[in-house]
Amino acid sequence: MPANQQILLDNRPQGEATVDNFKLVTTDTPALSDGQVLVKHHFLSLDPYMRGRMNDSKSYAASQGLGEVMIGGTVGEVVESKHPKFAVGDKVVGMGGWQQYSVVDASQPGALRKVDTTHVPLSHYLGAVGMPGVTAWYGLVKIINPKAGETVVISAATGAVGSAFGALAKARGCRAVGIAGGPEKCKYAVEELGFDACIDYKQHKDMYSLAKALKEHCPNGIDGYFENVGGMILDAVLLRMNAFGRIAVCGMIAGYDGAPLPLTNPALILVNRLKIEGFIVSEHMEVWPEALTELGTLVATGKLRPRETIAEGIASAPEAFLGLLKGKNFGKQLVRL
Amino acid sequence: MPANQQILLDNRPQGEATVDNFKLVTTDTPALSDGQVLVKHHFLSLDPYMRGRMNDSKSYAASQGLGEVMIGGTVGEVVESKHPKFAVGDKVVGMGGWQQYSVVDASQPGALRKVDTTHVPLSHYLGAVGMPGVTAWYGLVKIINPKAGETVVISAATGAVGSAFGALAKARGCRAVGIAGGPEKCKYAVEELGFDACIDYKQHKDMYSLAKALKEHCPNGIDGYFENVGGMILDAVLLRMNAFGRIAVCGMIAGYDGAPLPLTNPALILVNRLKIEGFIVSEHMEVWPEALTELGTLVATGKLRPRETIAEGIASAPEAFLGLLKGKNFGKQLVRL
Repeated sequence: MPANQQILLDNRPQGEATVDNFKLVTTDTPALSDGQVLVKHHFLSLDPYMRGRMNDSKSYAASQGLGEVMIGGTVGEVVESKHPKFAVGDKVVGMGGWQQYSVVDASQPGALRKVDTTHVPLSHYLGAVGMPGVTAWYGLVKIINPKAGETVVISAATGAVGSAFGALAKARGCRAVGIAGGPEKCKYAVEELGFDACIDYKQHKDMYSLAKALKEHCPNGIDGYFENVGGMILDAVLLRMNAFGRIAVCGMIAGYDGAPLPLTNPALILVNRLKIEGFIVSEHMEVWPEALTELGTLVATGKLRPRETIAEGIASAPEAFLGLLKGKNFGKQLVRL
Repeated sequence: MPANQQILLDNRPQGEATVDNFKLVTTDTPALSDGQVLVKHHFLSLDPYMRGRMNDSKSYAASQGLGEVMIGGTVGEVVESKHPKFAVGDKVVGMGGWQQYSVVDASQPGALRKVDTTHVPLSHYLGAVGMPGVTAWYGLVKIINPKAGETVVISAATGAVGSAFGALAKARGCRAVGIAGGPEKCKYAVEELGFDACIDYKQHKDMYSLAKALKEHCPNGIDGYFENVGGMILDAVLLRMNAFGRIAVCGMIAGYDGAPLPLTNPALILVNRLKIEGFIVSEHMEVWPEALTELGTLVATGKLRPRETIAEGIASAPEAFLGLLKGKNFGKQLVRL
């Protein structure tokens, strides 16, 4: 049984999350029972939703337990199998968590999925052709549901979700406008991800300044918005939404650390007859096959070329995760194990 | 040609609306052209949406023009007709505005509708069996779309919209909980309108106190909310919404007078995967026949017995309207002409 380095949630953040919230431990991997598979992780996914799970929120779907291995998506390969459908050497994607190995009950629906790395690199199954890609797909297709020619906007545009969103929106004939932090990210959004324009929110001190930039880059207003951030960015977008606009709320990363960030003018929901809908993509497993097929084709045909930021080694995960929350990553944030 | 007293919007409110925003004038009614009808108004409807129209909002559907007759629903009778489908003595409902008479181009679709006063009093066509009733119907049926056994909540529960909402929700097997201002209104909501419970928001100083009262009266949480008010009440309801809850936004009366009232914790939209939708009932004329049929039946069978507050004479309209904005009315606010 190989030794298994794991990162546990040791204590809950008081305000901003820090490395001291985590603890690195080493355990032995247990012997397999019938139906189980031992997976050696090659990449660990870091995603903003994990910050929400670190809080002790009674109403939220799945708060992360204290003293437990941090949850998270993983790709790797089968190194031992007591399940007839999985063989040693199979490449698989699952929710192995922040650790080097996981023991998976492979009969559980959706617990482990074999993937084909002929046209899609293994790591992309944690990004563009994985949960973040499907998240973008669900928000765009099922909530925003844009017509060709409409304008759609996304915050955190160069992240894993944003990258996929841009390609999916362009494939539907939309004007796609990103919001990101810094000129380098904005250049990347336009030159490599295919956004029609990208606004650097760091150049704007308040919602009115940002709303002015949105007006310039969205001359026909905004029909759909995909929210990853909240706060000032949401306030600014609301000022430019067209009547009957749709807003998919996927993240409020700006408010994860402390006091709730208010929404300045909710009356605009009425004035512009908006639809706003929050969602968690894991509650919509029925769309994954359709979404993954489209996303895989976009990657295989070079229409979606997502960038990755890769931290090395399990011990680097906490710091890489905190960097992600501050937007230090460029594209999908991964940890290579 | 009879003399016609009219109330014009003279100037726009700076903050709170006052009687000085209005001007009473007397004009002659013009001679009729072919296809036109002269209607003598019996009742004028006063509704919260009129306050929104008094602001100079570029994005809103129809801002009220300065120097023009205040818009508004009216019921009355035809006193002169140059249209083959309308005869003198016909009882009609229309959008005649704050004046004693209106000249209506009766060929325009929806401009004038004949009504039957056998089982439904004429004034009710401005309330339970009119625009406010259809507003309640649309928000409940098309946005909240509740299952039997679910809990639905409405603010301004004893107003024209709230009264209809309560009866419609009970007809669908829901638990209906109202929010209203003062013990007398709450008593009326439960004893006469059929609400299962009604919370007096004036007894609560902050959102946490009100949320506690909501928890008590909505032991299974809130599945649907119909928003007429905004501000602290919306904040409190958001704390008690169930996962996958629906919020129909019809009014934000608390924020009409000045600076926008923020929404304290928009992240709850994501945490509870809520759907929030703003609407204006006049944009959904396709539902009016179905809604009016149900509402007319509820009134005719005594299941909806709406109360009215009636001001006397056109000159009383501004003050009655300002009282409505402060919740001084009891049930539907009308002006008898």
